[in-house]
Amino acid sequence: MKEIKKVCIVGAGAIGSLFVGHLGSIIDTCVLTRRENHAQDLNDKGLKVSGKSDLHANVTASTNPADLGDVDLVIIATKTNAVEASAKCLQGHFPNASILMVQNGLGCEEVVRRYGDWPIISGVTFMSGVRHSDTHVEYELDTATWMGPWEGGGPDFEFVQQAEALINKSGLIAEAYEDLRPHLWSKLIFNSAVNAISAVTNLPHVPAYAKQDNIEDLGNLVYDMMMEGIRIAEAQGIKLSGNPWEMNVKAVSQGTSGGEEYAHITSMLNDVRSKSFTEVDWITGSIVRAAKKVGVPAPYHETLYRLVKGVELSWSQKEPDH
Amino acid sequence: MKEIKKVCIVGAGAIGSLFVGHLGSIIDTCVLTRRENHAQDLNDKGLKVSGKSDLHANVTASTNPADLGDVDLVIIATKTNAVEASAKCLQGHFPNASILMVQNGLGCEEVVRRYGDWPIISGVTFMSGVRHSDTHVEYELDTATWMGPWEGGGPDFEFVQQAEALINKSGLIAEAYEDLRPHLWSKLIFNSAVNAISAVTNLPHVPAYAKQDNIEDLGNLVYDMMMEGIRIAEAQGIKLSGNPWEMNVKAVSQGTSGGEEYAHITSMLNDVRSKSFTEVDWITGSIVRAAKKVGVPAPYHETLYRLVKGVELSWSQKEPDH
Repeated sequence: MKEIKKVCIVGAGAIGSLFVGHLGSIIDTCVLTRRENHAQDLNDKGLKVSGKSDLHANVTASTNPADLGDVDLVIIATKTNAVEASAKCLQGHFPNASILMVQNGLGCEEVVRRYGDWPIISGVTFMSGVRHSDTHVEYELDTATWMGPWEGGGPDFEFVQQAEALINKSGLIAEAYEDLRPHLWSKLIFNSAVNAISAVTNLPHVPAYAKQDNIEDLGNLVYDMMMEGIRIAEAQGIKLSGNPWEMNVKAVSQGTSGGEEYAHITSMLNDVRSKSFTEVDWITGSIVRAAKKVGVPAPYHETLYRLVKGVELSWSQKEPDH
Repeated sequence: MKEIKKVCIVGAGAIGSLFVGHLGSIIDTCVLTRRENHAQDLNDKGLKVSGKSDLHANVTASTNPADLGDVDLVIIATKTNAVEASAKCLQGHFPNASILMVQNGLGCEEVVRRYGDWPIISGVTFMSGVRHSDTHVEYELDTATWMGPWEGGGPDFEFVQQAEALINKSGLIAEAYEDLRPHLWSKLIFNSAVNAISAVTNLPHVPAYAKQDNIEDLGNLVYDMMMEGIRIAEAQGIKLSGNPWEMNVKAVSQGTSGGEEYAHITSMLNDVRSKSFTEVDWITGSIVRAAKKVGVPAPYHETLYRLVKGVELSWSQKEPDH
């Protein structure tokens, strides 16, 4: 089997930088950035990781893949909305590489496939970092990245396991699965409900998301929406690895027991607060499209999908003086 | 039949003030206010109406109904959330009066009934005013107030017609119906969708509310929600007087044809922007409860009801510094 000797990280936001800093400490690592000055800074100073890790990695960076030589594994770590631009940039390069995707939601693999026939590894990451500068990231949440061969055309599972071992050796956490979908969908259904509901209510993930005492309680909506998601997964033959509702109840009840109130500000709420377009097309929208394909009604997902789109639309609405 | 010789308006916000100014110009009119200084100002200066009308009415005002003598017609013009306090204040007074209610939504009649056995006229008003001060209101939208005997215990229809004639004579517009429900529900279904969706998206009533080109378009949600509302009305044996979806399409398309873009900021959106509790319990919430009673599924109304409640909850959410 082909051995991974060199990796390329595409995009050095918080998640990308965590991969760069960790992998760069144990293997030949290069970085494809969007900005020239970002590449220059990484070439000059390398990347520092603080927080849960304490590392410094020297790397080669460029805005042009032709500068980076041949690589065996590419990790696309940009946000979903930037995946198309990344794939376009990779077109015709790295013919011997497999690509690992770590975006939220579903469907980024198809986008990449339109630009090349690299074997693709689907992934989802739960780690988090705080990006202090172009050359410094803080490793915050040391949770796993899950990965598995993409059903539309992935590498052998042995290659995925090699990537898993490499990431684990670097100080991050990876888990490889022959069938990622039961894991991916458990988290996707959870994320879709909690993210979209927080985006339209401006309410962080608080205990109200599990409250079901009265008919107007928000927990009823979270429950109904998650059960709908489970029906959509099951209709595709996916048996979930975890129950999204139990994940929800556990998350909000863990928080309150720790003294300080748990109130996770989801990534979609964060986007809405800064008026950045959300990843709703890839999260809630991807469930809506999957439901359509298997003919399962999806009123809750459709509703939240359309409402988040409405929120995004409100940013460009000019209002008459009154 | 009993003749209406004296009326009392309860609450002198924008709508209440419009009734006070107009009726006060043609009939003995008194006002029950919440604030002492509001009553004092009205007693001293009367009420001025500008805009679509140009009037000045002298009235008697007090915070205590015992000061106001016997009346034949009471108009409760407070917001839904204040109806209970108004009814409590009226308890044991005005034994010979019928009460006209002009709140948004459904269910305020039951609240009033708990405090007295006055015959009740259900109503809904579409007029609007801008309240410039305690003693000056501008008559803005000169649209109708619909009314009909409440099915839970109203006066004779002849009495309702007498109230209708009185209001019309005063310069406002009233329409009396023997069965108000087909009219009330047409507007209620329209209002429930447009108000609740605007409250959670921060998007005024714009053409996007009628757009149905793509699966994520907001018009699909408006349509689905209104069709659900129609099913709930029909299950109660109510045949709507108008089609809410057509009202929606007409409202947003009229606006754009007039050059200036139509973008109505709904009352619920207005409340959300000023972080005032909305009337969602009486509008979307009342449809949810009606659906439950007749056993019709109401996923869209339940969802929007819970989301608006979530928005209200977000105002009291303390967030950790991060």
